[in-house]
Amino acid sequence: MDRRSFLKNAGLAGGVAAASTLASPAISQNRQEWRMVTTWPKNFPGLGVGAQRMADRITAASDGRLTVRLFSAGELVPALQSLDAVIDGSAEMSHGAAYYWQNKNVGLNFFTGVPYGMTAGELSAWVRHLGGQEIWDEIYAQFGLKGFLSGNTGTQAGGWFRSELNSVADIQGLRFRTPGLGGRVWEKMGATVTNLAAGEIFQALQSGTLDAAEFVGPYNDLALGFYQIAKNYYFPSFIEPGLATELVVDKAKYEALPTDLQEIVRSVAQAEYEMVWSDFTANDPRALQTLVNDHGVKVLAFPEDIMEAGAKASMEIFEELRASDDPLTKKVAESFVEGLALVRQKTSDADEPFLRAREKYFQLS
Amino acid sequence: MDRRSFLKNAGLAGGVAAASTLASPAISQNRQEWRMVTTWPKNFPGLGVGAQRMADRITAASDGRLTVRLFSAGELVPALQSLDAVIDGSAEMSHGAAYYWQNKNVGLNFFTGVPYGMTAGELSAWVRHLGGQEIWDEIYAQFGLKGFLSGNTGTQAGGWFRSELNSVADIQGLRFRTPGLGGRVWEKMGATVTNLAAGEIFQALQSGTLDAAEFVGPYNDLALGFYQIAKNYYFPSFIEPGLATELVVDKAKYEALPTDLQEIVRSVAQAEYEMVWSDFTANDPRALQTLVNDHGVKVLAFPEDIMEAGAKASMEIFEELRASDDPLTKKVAESFVEGLALVRQKTSDADEPFLRAREKYFQLS
Repeated sequence: MDRRSFLKNAGLAGGVAAASTLASPAISQNRQEWRMVTTWPKNFPGLGVGAQRMADRITAASDGRLTVRLFSAGELVPALQSLDAVIDGSAEMSHGAAYYWQNKNVGLNFFTGVPYGMTAGELSAWVRHLGGQEIWDEIYAQFGLKGFLSGNTGTQAGGWFRSELNSVADIQGLRFRTPGLGGRVWEKMGATVTNLAAGEIFQALQSGTLDAAEFVGPYNDLALGFYQIAKNYYFPSFIEPGLATELVVDKAKYEALPTDLQEIVRSVAQAEYEMVWSDFTANDPRALQTLVNDHGVKVLAFPEDIMEAGAKASMEIFEELRASDDPLTKKVAESFVEGLALVRQKTSDADEPFLRAREKYFQLS
Repeated sequence: MDRRSFLKNAGLAGGVAAASTLASPAISQNRQEWRMVTTWPKNFPGLGVGAQRMADRITAASDGRLTVRLFSAGELVPALQSLDAVIDGSAEMSHGAAYYWQNKNVGLNFFTGVPYGMTAGELSAWVRHLGGQEIWDEIYAQFGLKGFLSGNTGTQAGGWFRSELNSVADIQGLRFRTPGLGGRVWEKMGATVTNLAAGEIFQALQSGTLDAAEFVGPYNDLALGFYQIAKNYYFPSFIEPGLATELVVDKAKYEALPTDLQEIVRSVAQAEYEMVWSDFTANDPRALQTLVNDHGVKVLAFPEDIMEAGAKASMEIFEELRASDDPLTKKVAESFVEGLALVRQKTSDADEPFLRAREKYFQLS
């Protein structure tokens, strides 16, 4: 997808169709239509495509008894009003990322991913087997919602930089686009952080308002055209080691579904977590090859002192969250820290030594 | 689960109920019962439990229109006759591992995992997005079957050794239990390799017939009690970096299902790939803590020259498979090598540097 047609469809800055002009959900003879709003532009690689595929799979698995109609960002409500649309009943489902709603509870960050936190596989282990889902349910129940993991980007790229970085000194005053807790990490390291919507980043880089920007990874970033301005592409993202997306449903309406349809929603969401993640695993490298071979992008690793300063800043943020006055924020932070301490043992005992050895000794041509 | 009750249920060595004494599948008013045979003992951690959960989820998501009845290893047919049971029509589904059937086509190894091959996430990217599934379909279509990924153990443990290993020299003549292509790798390194069923390993270690054995990882191995004999537990498995399980269905019967039931089978199998894998991610470390704290097990890393010799032996095996006279074996080997060359780029650009930095700089207490 080229940048122009991608942005034309993005609907991030433009007008939004009035909700009232769109049909309300049809319910007849055990068939109902649910509206799924999303925070993603139409056909957005990996994530927007995944939301559409999830809607189609639920519809197919239920033989249309639960027909899910997808509205991309801006089609029914603006991207960042998706959760509120489910709360106020103008949609039954939202597909997005929990950290967009951190103003409702900062603990929601943990269900998307946090700086120096869990990889995609570790996150799912915590959510499904180590108590994460139960705390997520508690937080969302306050708003009449229920969340499911619905996708993951895997470990992201660190960002696009106009100039090379040699040390933490080069970050001081750097105008960098990066949102959420990751933005706070970069602020602590000395950057001047702003958050811009996907459709605004390119222009800000071009005009010189930004020195650098991070978005997702090669698969998405290629479409956004950042390589035209900033040629230095840094890896890895230490602030988003595995960004999970969520499917949020209206809790009361979900619980009123027949149990077979509940299981279909649950199973398709879990299948899509795996499907979207593996899509990024397959397509990030292909997009990166295009960026390097066709667009002269330079792939670089962050200097060691930046990785270290990022870890220090991240630990400070973890400690703040663990000391939160809000009982649920404190609870989710403690559960996440405990879960990470456990699951990282498998990563360090088994995964890492295997990968190191493969990298060193195993090459086929 | 203690070892005794586990083995009592294992049904690996004992008698098998005659198939004729069990009811044939009931079909009435759009409700049908399918028999799922498995290669796993009843309640086997992660894998056997996952097969049962998958059966239950398909039954629930279809509201019983497709009721799946599970038969653990030995209940309807012995473990290693599961695939043949689907071929001959005495079952509709089999839950096991594709490499058990490598005598039908050695290329089936790739859909379980191969020495120095793909991790669980990489394998799914290849199968779902880089052409793996299509070749798998070609191989199984020859037998009237279709396969789906249905679970993964993640990176396994390297094995239990009575004596510590200091170098490749210590492997010469070592009597080691390890199956399949992994066994061939250890043979090339100098070990005397045997394959014994799960229920026979403990006794062989105890009697001194074996010097060492590898099975899966802490979650399963704890139940089998190997720690009582061999205290040295080596990591990682370089021969099974991510062992995938499969759901195999009778292709004609699957294609005769209404499309909603087909989507339910497909979605639940994919959801369970993620569910089983995350179960191991969460529970391997817990089991390992028990092994270390309660049973005095010593966790060790393989010496560097063993990791290197293992890679060399693995590359030789890859080259043999790529040079196969069988067109499908050659095709799957080439596709796997091409897929691995691609997906490992994300692993080495993003995942590994992130994990290295987290290991080095990020510690919370």
